[in-house]
Amino acid sequence: MTRALRAVDVIQRKRDGHELASEEIAFFVGGYARGEIPDYQASALAMAIFFQGMTAPETVALTQAMMHTGRVLDLADIPGPKVDKHSTGGVGDKTSLVLGPLAAACGVTVPMISGRGLGHTGGTLDKLEAIPGFRVGLGVEEFRHILGRCGIGFIGQTAEIAPADRKLYALRDVTATVESRPLIAASIMSKKLAEGVSALVLDVKTGGGAFLPRFDDSIALAEAMVAIGRGVGKKIAALVTDMDQPLGLSAGNALEVAECVETLKGRGPADTEALSVELAAWMLLLGDVSPDLDSARARVQGALSSGAGLRKLQEVVELQGGDPRVCDDPGRLPEAREKVVLRSPEAGHVARIACRAVGHAIMLLGAGRETVASTIDAAVGVVFHKKRGDAVDRDEPLLTVHVNDRRRLNECLDLLRSSIDVAREPPEPQPLVHTVLR
Amino acid sequence: MTRALRAVDVIQRKRDGHELASEEIAFFVGGYARGEIPDYQASALAMAIFFQGMTAPETVALTQAMMHTGRVLDLADIPGPKVDKHSTGGVGDKTSLVLGPLAAACGVTVPMISGRGLGHTGGTLDKLEAIPGFRVGLGVEEFRHILGRCGIGFIGQTAEIAPADRKLYALRDVTATVESRPLIAASIMSKKLAEGVSALVLDVKTGGGAFLPRFDDSIALAEAMVAIGRGVGKKIAALVTDMDQPLGLSAGNALEVAECVETLKGRGPADTEALSVELAAWMLLLGDVSPDLDSARARVQGALSSGAGLRKLQEVVELQGGDPRVCDDPGRLPEAREKVVLRSPEAGHVARIACRAVGHAIMLLGAGRETVASTIDAAVGVVFHKKRGDAVDRDEPLLTVHVNDRRRLNECLDLLRSSIDVAREPPEPQPLVHTVLR
Repeated sequence: MTRALRAVDVIQRKRDGHELASEEIAFFVGGYARGEIPDYQASALAMAIFFQGMTAPETVALTQAMMHTGRVLDLADIPGPKVDKHSTGGVGDKTSLVLGPLAAACGVTVPMISGRGLGHTGGTLDKLEAIPGFRVGLGVEEFRHILGRCGIGFIGQTAEIAPADRKLYALRDVTATVESRPLIAASIMSKKLAEGVSALVLDVKTGGGAFLPRFDDSIALAEAMVAIGRGVGKKIAALVTDMDQPLGLSAGNALEVAECVETLKGRGPADTEALSVELAAWMLLLGDVSPDLDSARARVQGALSSGAGLRKLQEVVELQGGDPRVCDDPGRLPEAREKVVLRSPEAGHVARIACRAVGHAIMLLGAGRETVASTIDAAVGVVFHKKRGDAVDRDEPLLTVHVNDRRRLNECLDLLRSSIDVAREPPEPQPLVHTVLR
Repeated sequence: MTRALRAVDVIQRKRDGHELASEEIAFFVGGYARGEIPDYQASALAMAIFFQGMTAPETVALTQAMMHTGRVLDLADIPGPKVDKHSTGGVGDKTSLVLGPLAAACGVTVPMISGRGLGHTGGTLDKLEAIPGFRVGLGVEEFRHILGRCGIGFIGQTAEIAPADRKLYALRDVTATVESRPLIAASIMSKKLAEGVSALVLDVKTGGGAFLPRFDDSIALAEAMVAIGRGVGKKIAALVTDMDQPLGLSAGNALEVAECVETLKGRGPADTEALSVELAAWMLLLGDVSPDLDSARARVQGALSSGAGLRKLQEVVELQGGDPRVCDDPGRLPEAREKVVLRSPEAGHVARIACRAVGHAIMLLGAGRETVASTIDAAVGVVFHKKRGDAVDRDEPLLTVHVNDRRRLNECLDLLRSSIDVAREPPEPQPLVHTVLR
């Protein structure tokens, strides 16, 4: 006699610290996606997982169960190795628009399914929509067509991809069960693995502006995701990278697109270029385009110097309905009506740029979302003139605020002022890439 | 600016181990009772409480919040001290029908609001309904009338009493959050305190047949309930009593009523009489009817010897529509068609009667509920001829099964056989009352 699985027993076993079997997890996730298991049992299980954690095999089973509640893209008929990058997000994190075209220019096929940002700054989709005409709402067939044509394409997460994850994430948000490492890892991985990639490079941010600020937590999340990738037989590497100050010089959607264009012209900020090249090199390595990391770096650097990366961006912008001239003339991007300069109150070195406060400040300008329903002002944001470690004179500009709606400007400026410390001595330099897990 | 409370923040604060304020608890419980806070947030909070526990002030606040979602009886115009007893339940636990009439005969007013049993055996209401004609579905006004007339009355929990507890208990049942001490304690106490009593005596069972078998857990639950009682300014005492073997000689609804009648005639099993007298004496003491426990015991014993207790039972049975002649002639109670005797396979002493197995066995006969929807057969059950420590000869009857439906009889007999151990040496005697907390 086989005994039918019951949701309450699955919850109780997890509550009591037992390892759930794959069948139990698939039963629960599938039942939840189909509406047979109610929200109140799913939230109880999520809270039990928050306290008891999950083993690596459980997390793999959860990821696969969520992935299989929806469509898994089959990109086998599109040539080239399919590799994507996923970032846990941060302020000024714009590497997708640089590394995607670079990797594609080197022969990697890059199917980027991205989210929109909540809080902080916009997501990749919000940045792309700062380009006049750019369409992210492609159907899957059009997406495949574009991928086949130019080796890179950008779409938003559709209702077909991992619907159980969408439903569970919305539930976790209102039941205080977001901050659970296995749930975070499985949520990210279920969506990314549904893209039909053979390899994945993760950019796990750490520091003040990261989703998980503490280094130990970032490492643990990276480990959990790498274990899932391995568990499902994908090539995977996780770079744990610095998010203790904003990446690059700009934060705000159009401003970041402009910085990406500059970077692909070889004139971008050092950190944006270096991190984009490094992540793209890992994509080449895991995609077996290059035999080792050094030659992968050299190849990506070549695509940057030759302008091949910039041309690839121009190609995909045009294919997705955007104005390709922004790649020659970023002046075609939306511009804010007013610019306000913030100057240093004293001479010294920039000791700290508090990332989270900067994110909050540009949200006040309208560059990010306070709620899912908020609309985004593509033009507004902040451009830094100094970064951590830079020398600065008294009254020298620290940053410029690009503003349309002045109503919350003072609040924004106060936040920005308090987010930058200037000290006599320069701070200890910090690495851009802390470590790599694979 | 006062910030509006949000359910998700309350969940998160509990999840993170903070002590919730009374206002937060009242906000959550009230919102849940009104349907403004959904089940999925309540189950997440319940699971967080399962892991993080609750302080004594939190448990008091939870009890009061649940109590105040419904009607709290005001019995001020009914004479006498209002005192009730609550038992955490067990096999053969029938003391309410003995101690209630005894305490009432001594001048205590006993407003008994009881539940039905789930699993194991029937609850007090199920036992009373074994008496032909007995009505437990009284309205509150009729209940008050009966209480005023004879000092004791029995009703079922109505929808008006602590509705938040009913709703939460049903939710906990399907989300694996039943086994949380503060939630158990607050659930019991919110209902009992809504009865409008000034004092409460708790019978917390411990041992194999108890809801919480481990002694430490029983003590902790007793402590939690005593703390709540004190916190709301009620007189309260908790007796932690033995449930390692069934109480008395019978288990099954009509059989237990018959045993209660015999006990009130002074001819009952020693343990049923002793525990009923002890609990009733505590009711007299907390109700200030007697100045100390010894005189309270003597007074209760007097009501037993004089037959005043039996007459009180007869009175309330008649007032609630039941056939009062069962108190003279228990043969008027429903009787099973068939009796099956189980004999001892060897000579020795009864070393153990596994309480939970006995409970399960009589449920198979139809004496208890497998699900809320099950109907109960009042006539069936088990009568023991030997109890723990009794000497027994080979082939001497150990117990008699009273059965109507033979379909699961073999399963029942197998369970009963395996539940009784006979050993050469008599077991260590165990106390009936382990300890008293107040």
